[in-house]
Amino acid sequence: MPSIRAAIIGATGYTALELAKLLVRHPRVQITAATSRQEAGLPLAAIHPWLADRCEVQVSNADPRQLAEVADVAFCCLPHGAASATVRELAAAGLRVIDLSADFRLSSPALYQQWYGDHHAWPEKLGHVVYGLPELFAGHLTEARLVANPGCYPTSAILPLAPLLKAGAIAAEGIIVDSKSGVSGAGRSPKLGTLYCEVNESVAAYSVGEHRHQPEMKDVLRRSTGVEANLLFTPHLMPMDRGILSTIYVTPQRATAADVMEIWREAYSHAPFVRVVSHLPATKFVTHTNFCDITVREAGDRLILLSALDNLIKGASGAAIQNLNCMMAWDETLGLM
Amino acid sequence: MPSIRAAIIGATGYTALELAKLLVRHPRVQITAATSRQEAGLPLAAIHPWLADRCEVQVSNADPRQLAEVADVAFCCLPHGAASATVRELAAAGLRVIDLSADFRLSSPALYQQWYGDHHAWPEKLGHVVYGLPELFAGHLTEARLVANPGCYPTSAILPLAPLLKAGAIAAEGIIVDSKSGVSGAGRSPKLGTLYCEVNESVAAYSVGEHRHQPEMKDVLRRSTGVEANLLFTPHLMPMDRGILSTIYVTPQRATAADVMEIWREAYSHAPFVRVVSHLPATKFVTHTNFCDITVREAGDRLILLSALDNLIKGASGAAIQNLNCMMAWDETLGLM
Amino acid sequence: MPSIRAAIIGATGYTALELAKLLVRHPRVQITAATSRQEAGLPLAAIHPWLADRCEVQVSNADPRQLAEVADVAFCCLPHGAASATVRELAAAGLRVIDLSADFRLSSPALYQQWYGDHHAWPEKLGHVVYGLPELFAGHLTEARLVANPGCYPTSAILPLAPLLKAGAIAAEGIIVDSKSGVSGAGRSPKLGTLYCEVNESVAAYSVGEHRHQPEMKDVLRRSTGVEANLLFTPHLMPMDRGILSTIYVTPQRATAADVMEIWREAYSHAPFVRVVSHLPATKFVTHTNFCDITVREAGDRLILLSALDNLIKGASGAAIQNLNCMMAWDETLGLM
Amino acid sequence: MPSIRAAIIGATGYTALELAKLLVRHPRVQITAATSRQEAGLPLAAIHPWLADRCEVQVSNADPRQLAEVADVAFCCLPHGAASATVRELAAAGLRVIDLSADFRLSSPALYQQWYGDHHAWPEKLGHVVYGLPELFAGHLTEARLVANPGCYPTSAILPLAPLLKAGAIAAEGIIVDSKSGVSGAGRSPKLGTLYCEVNESVAAYSVGEHRHQPEMKDVLRRSTGVEANLLFTPHLMPMDRGILSTIYVTPQRATAADVMEIWREAYSHAPFVRVVSHLPATKFVTHTNFCDITVREAGDRLILLSALDNLIKGASGAAIQNLNCMMAWDETLGLM
Repeated sequence: MPSIRAAIIGATGYTALELAKLLVRHPRVQITAATSRQEAGLPLAAIHPWLADRCEVQVSNADPRQLAEVADVAFCCLPHGAASATVRELAAAGLRVIDLSADFRLSSPALYQQWYGDHHAWPEKLGHVVYGLPELFAGHLTEARLVANPGCYPTSAILPLAPLLKAGAIAAEGIIVDSKSGVSGAGRSPKLGTLYCEVNESVAAYSVGEHRHQPEMKDVLRRSTGVEANLLFTPHLMPMDRGILSTIYVTPQRATAADVMEIWREAYSHAPFVRVVSHLPATKFVTHTNFCDITVREAGDRLILLSALDNLIKGASGAAIQNLNCMMAWDETLGLM
Repeated sequence: MPSIRAAIIGATGYTALELAKLLVRHPRVQITAATSRQEAGLPLAAIHPWLADRCEVQVSNADPRQLAEVADVAFCCLPHGAASATVRELAAAGLRVIDLSADFRLSSPALYQQWYGDHHAWPEKLGHVVYGLPELFAGHLTEARLVANPGCYPTSAILPLAPLLKAGAIAAEGIIVDSKSGVSGAGRSPKLGTLYCEVNESVAAYSVGEHRHQPEMKDVLRRSTGVEANLLFTPHLMPMDRGILSTIYVTPQRATAADVMEIWREAYSHAPFVRVVSHLPATKFVTHTNFCDITVREAGDRLILLSALDNLIKGASGAAIQNLNCMMAWDETLGLM
Repeated sequence: MPSIRAAIIGATGYTALELAKLLVRHPRVQITAATSRQEAGLPLAAIHPWLADRCEVQVSNADPRQLAEVADVAFCCLPHGAASATVRELAAAGLRVIDLSADFRLSSPALYQQWYGDHHAWPEKLGHVVYGLPELFAGHLTEARLVANPGCYPTSAILPLAPLLKAGAIAAEGIIVDSKSGVSGAGRSPKLGTLYCEVNESVAAYSVGEHRHQPEMKDVLRRSTGVEANLLFTPHLMPMDRGILSTIYVTPQRATAADVMEIWREAYSHAPFVRVVSHLPATKFVTHTNFCDITVREAGDRLILLSALDNLIKGASGAAIQNLNCMMAWDETLGLM
Repeated sequence: MPSIRAAIIGATGYTALELAKLLVRHPRVQITAATSRQEAGLPLAAIHPWLADRCEVQVSNADPRQLAEVADVAFCCLPHGAASATVRELAAAGLRVIDLSADFRLSSPALYQQWYGDHHAWPEKLGHVVYGLPELFAGHLTEARLVANPGCYPTSAILPLAPLLKAGAIAAEGIIVDSKSGVSGAGRSPKLGTLYCEVNESVAAYSVGEHRHQPEMKDVLRRSTGVEANLLFTPHLMPMDRGILSTIYVTPQRATAADVMEIWREAYSHAPFVRVVSHLPATKFVTHTNFCDITVREAGDRLILLSALDNLIKGASGAAIQNLNCMMAWDETLGLM
């Protein structure tokens, strides 16, 4: 089987590490470049010793043109704000780009500016980038040159919600997404708030009512279902490395739990990474996989949707590879099972 | 200062251990007895080595009459169902009783039967027992001979909700309590579900829509505020020893976040263990204390109330001592600061 | 590529789960049977929801003869003592057997009896079973019908020690192996000692001076190097799911740290799963892999050897698959990278 | 009872927080000042929300002279190197000083320079400062104006070793101290190595053969017993907040385990915080206390000593208060039980 060459841009973080872990197992991808401003010159395995004897690539400062000579696709793991300029250059240099930042997820410059400020280097592109959730947008991926990889929380909310909103099974009003995440989602830059002794043996909410993944959820739900969802999102930090559990409170519109299961089973009959399960999802059942488990429970006059995924895999790097597989018209599960 | 003698009934669990940890520091209480069917004959410190050199009491099989000869007050740490018969005998033997089980928390035999079955040994007592939340029922505690110690989750929900319902500041409809708890709340009996490798690095909901603390919350809110709250409660198990964070979604009735803070500050101006804080509560800020921290955030057309407490202290054994202090007309904070 | 059929005997524990996780990814093995006395009748994925949509096998009570009709190789995950009788029957029924218990690891019935008692069902076999550490005994594996899969701690000690003892680079006297292990090594049966709240936020030694892996280390070192090592082993339980770090104190015989690295590099030049590293090993760098990382430091007149592996993979199920690969004369890394 | 006024110098770290937690419970100490360069102006409880409603002190930039006006004793929680200059000024200003850094622990300027460099501001003082381990040096504490609070690891090693070396019960040669510590010992400054996702689910050794607590152990053992111990110390980082377990390998000189227990019991008959226990110590049994638990096991021709303490309490802030109690000739346990 012919394989393609991949570059990892911004190779020091957890997302990049997870991507490299997955790519060294992928039968049709070779990592041929990895970049980092601070760590240029080191072997990638020196930064991430897990990769020792598995990945020989050296970290460099290569610019997009140089990368285009050694790679076919670039996974951009730069932080929000910093990504857009590099993505633009990578695309201009002829690389296919899968951007793991938030810079190309929202569908309009105005929305981006409202939530992320005015540092975007390619605002006119917003609204014309495929949102990389193959379960909803697979048809657009095959021809895509640039894919916006979804946020971890949005994936956990959109996968259960989208088919139900589309089917009119639940109200668009009063949706509450209460999410619990492991710490790796907060990145690998040293910060007081993610020190072991701050996070361990503790649980807290953060960014209550103002997290940037809330507009992403609403924007993508609108694009994929046509429904303007009135949705409230509260993230919480859990003392664990990885995993997201979302507990989603919705009001049914004449739909029972059984109806919800039926709608999901049909919607995801061809989605290999969405498991409609009857047990209550635990993040442990999905960590180190690209699966998103979903189920539903009735409670009073509400339905409670529960979803679990691994924020580093289905919520980031696994999804990126799933997107690549779709872009290349390969089997969607290649390297991910 | 004259002191009183305390017996711990059912001394092997985490609640009993925490109670003993607190009582050995209490200036006016002596632990004079501890009972356990399985561990009779051992020193209490052999079961709980933390207590070595701090607590000389031997575990016995003493019955209520024997206990009444050596103790003035009994803390009953037996499981739900098993507690009621022993509590009845302890009371009959003349002991003051603080029951940490759920057996005397609900206000009617019918409600008890619906949620806990028909094993109650003293059903006619239900409806005539003080619910041991001094912040709401302090006036009734002074004369009490039997106190029903509150559930851990209910305390985390009732403390923020009660003053707001009473003031009409929030709607009684559509209240959602999404709680996250450490593992100690599940007890010390070996079970698959609380093994380290099942719980660690994982988060899951449990008893969705059917946890017994939901009727307790509604019952106590009705008794303390007169309002029938339509409330949905979802507990989650976190990978940590102790701590509960409750994220509570409510609909304001012309009340702002500032109004809520004001109502709380007034309601709890004399409550030494409720801290109305402006920061987002983390369980780490309250573990190993008897405090419950509460705050509020506005989000869209909702208010989000957040509360944090230590399930073993303010949610169990600390509350039990607070109740004892009130019953004895001592300073409410004795042994708890 | 033709594939073989595998049965998992005793499918409810962590070792069996890890084995199944690895086997569903193995390109030349099909899981065709799984047995458990307690859980017969359930899908394996109902016991281990991680396997949902990945493994369709039903758990049964099939006896060895029945298993021989549907499987070519049996992985026996029964506990020590219980395994020997089943292994004997599985072998008699014509199956290749990889036994993950300790029942066939020691080289004499006397040694087995001294450490495990007299319940062995096939004592005469002891001394004639390959010890499944391919790094030392690969030559014997190709023809093997029964393989004794090594203990997790022994692998972490034997891999660094064997080449050095063989080369005479370290003294046989005064070797101290101080090991730190995650909790999964203690199994999935509910026990007080492995409850979350007993283990979390705590570290302790156990079985000091009397752990059964100590004679296994000495026995295998003697068989593989001819040296009778005087070795002391102390295991410790860590608050983490998986991983073993062994800190090994030895007295050099005119060998420097550089000599040790050189001896290892030569000894393991063809061993794909031993990584001779220069950094201090952390279990995080090897978890979810079949690698064992080893390094050395000089300290005063001692050498300190450090090794890290994942107790569930290189310490159990990964090693079992590595053994299968060797038995089948496949690439040793098949399904393990 | 008359009380004294205490200042906390360097109030942002974990040691300072733990000190404040303990001091707010101490019946004879008032915290009257707290300093921090970065956080001056904030309430101490804003930095450490655990202290809310418990501690009203404002963090300031006060210099030693100003502090001398409002405090009688200063607890110096500055980092090594930075502490010596401030300690000298505090002492010159007339304050009693308990220094929690390493700056005054070693007994000679040469030894300090070898291990910590040449930044010491008061080198001539070295050799004339009481080492604050009341179990060994209580007699010197009563008159002390400056006390060097011991390192956390040294306390865990010196308490079990000192009486045995003094009694000649163990050889001075070949002592190995293998220690396992929680993460709080590494401080509260954001660093990659103490991020949650680096430390969690992992164990590793660090500073192998070169940790600065090794010379401290040898120096203090020599001063307290007259014996030059040949001692090797290896620290390990554990995924937990707090606690140290030390596993100490020694060679007995005609002493049995029973002899060791007897020597300890006599040596520590008046030491309220050393518990000579028969069970294997777990850090969980001592966390949140000022106890150090010690026991011994025989293994082959060795003795294995095991000790457990809470690095933030008996290993730092609890010891500091114990020292204060001794300096003031108060009951040694005041505020610590």
